[in-house]
Amino acid sequence: MPATTDPLPSWTDGAARAAIVEFVELVTTDGSPDLVAREERVAVFDNDGTLWCEKPMPIQLDFLLRRLAAMAHHDPSLRSRQPWQAAYTRDYGWLGGVVTKHYHGDDSDLPVLAAGVLQAFAGITVEDFEAQADSFLRSAQHPALGRGYLACAYRPMVELLGYLEANGFTNYIASGGGRDFMRPISQELYGIPRQRVIGSSTALAWEPDEAGGKVVRKPEADVLDDGPAKPVRIWSRVGRRPILAAGNSNGDLPMLQFAGQPGRAALRLLVLHDDPEREFDYVAGAERALEHTTAQGWTVVSIRRDWATVFDDTNG
Amino acid sequence: MPATTDPLPSWTDGAARAAIVEFVELVTTDGSPDLVAREERVAVFDNDGTLWCEKPMPIQLDFLLRRLAAMAHHDPSLRSRQPWQAAYTRDYGWLGGVVTKHYHGDDSDLPVLAAGVLQAFAGITVEDFEAQADSFLRSAQHPALGRGYLACAYRPMVELLGYLEANGFTNYIASGGGRDFMRPISQELYGIPRQRVIGSSTALAWEPDEAGGKVVRKPEADVLDDGPAKPVRIWSRVGRRPILAAGNSNGDLPMLQFAGQPGRAALRLLVLHDDPEREFDYVAGAERALEHTTAQGWTVVSIRRDWATVFDDTNG
Repeated sequence: MPATTDPLPSWTDGAARAAIVEFVELVTTDGSPDLVAREERVAVFDNDGTLWCEKPMPIQLDFLLRRLAAMAHHDPSLRSRQPWQAAYTRDYGWLGGVVTKHYHGDDSDLPVLAAGVLQAFAGITVEDFEAQADSFLRSAQHPALGRGYLACAYRPMVELLGYLEANGFTNYIASGGGRDFMRPISQELYGIPRQRVIGSSTALAWEPDEAGGKVVRKPEADVLDDGPAKPVRIWSRVGRRPILAAGNSNGDLPMLQFAGQPGRAALRLLVLHDDPEREFDYVAGAERALEHTTAQGWTVVSIRRDWATVFDDTNG
Repeated sequence: MPATTDPLPSWTDGAARAAIVEFVELVTTDGSPDLVAREERVAVFDNDGTLWCEKPMPIQLDFLLRRLAAMAHHDPSLRSRQPWQAAYTRDYGWLGGVVTKHYHGDDSDLPVLAAGVLQAFAGITVEDFEAQADSFLRSAQHPALGRGYLACAYRPMVELLGYLEANGFTNYIASGGGRDFMRPISQELYGIPRQRVIGSSTALAWEPDEAGGKVVRKPEADVLDDGPAKPVRIWSRVGRRPILAAGNSNGDLPMLQFAGQPGRAALRLLVLHDDPEREFDYVAGAERALEHTTAQGWTVVSIRRDWATVFDDTNG
């Protein structure tokens, strides 16, 4: 008889792996006092920094910058206006600062960036936007890691998603990133179908036309799916409280708190970026989440210690 | 060998049934030029008047009226204010008029009703709201049909949902009614799990508390899922265009148009309420949809002609 195949081969034999396996056995073993019915086994995952890289900037920001630079290339009047100026001159400092400031609660530059984001793809159909995102994700290279963006997913997390699914869990992405940006690759990359991608959204509108009609993007924000919006958005889409949540930043804190309720087992994972050799080393934007993790006994996943392999190099 | 069991026993042998069976065979038969991949077989259903009764008033309105009457019972100052006055004095004319006027494009009374709706359940958790809806739906009687509300689902439509699911379709409810009102009974009544219920929503908020936090209802409207909001909401949740849509009113028209696109087979069903003996007889609010149905060659489902049985009396 063959030995049972290890479902988590990229995880080292440490505390994080043990917490995951113990939790899954606790909620899935018949006769366990903490058994959770299959339909209640909902797991939610942040994406940027939790399932794939977010440094030196979120992948969607790179997508956006290229679009903004292309707009400034065609229209010189945009070259002296933010965020087009930063995109055109490759001033990544200004752009990265917007995200870091947001993590610290300072959203003063966010409207400037948001206005550019909204205008960058205004008026196109959701299908056209998705085709552009898909094409970018399949062709662009990560600026520092020497691999394509589709090879920037964390192999241990992909294994975790598969392990959970094999144990009757239903996995959702609950990301601050754009829902419609992630959908074209979520099934292929994570085994999560498009209807289970929750994320930030742009306002959409129905436009009748001679063929019936189409859904187009409006130049208006809809929902920034971060912080307290995450549990609201998860409830709205799923209609259940998760029993497992994984994140990596302060913006994931309400989602982590939402997973689990008195009298029911729950697992909360916080990915810690502490591996400058294989990935990145930063805690900016995760300080409060880390404090909570310690205080609540949640599980820290250290990239350096808990992951034997970070990326899947057969998929580069 | 046993004869094949008829999957649609409550449908008469007419044009509507033939259109349904022909369409399902067209998109599911291997080698058919119109074969549609399993994950693309998305079907969307309006609820009020399409899957269950909506006369003499939508079922959720009865739920709301009882709550408003109870509020006026405890607070006499509410008895001279709409909509509490109508609820307390059982002035169903005023209330039914709001809905009929909405179908005709006149929303002048809607804010008055909406304000009452929003205040009726403000501040309670989503779990508490759902428990109240569940309790009401399992106990209240339809005012005219002599049956409980859970027995007001149309048996032929429940059979259709099962037939589609058996053929690899994924069914969603896309209703103008409240999402969180339908969720507690959607699986039991229709075989549609809660995460596939799309509908109108009240604004929700995350409130941290000592146990972690909770999602509560705010006294603010969020989305009225009717008319052009339906295709937007379906895209947002599903990420695909449906290939089958069923409705019964003008508010379903954009959803019916959204289902189907050039070069791909689609089925559009419009339930026609023409049976005063077994259900109700009305076209108010469906006039434009009926015109479109004729012009586009969509399929009318006549309750009188196409349904051998309307309700499941083993489930009363």
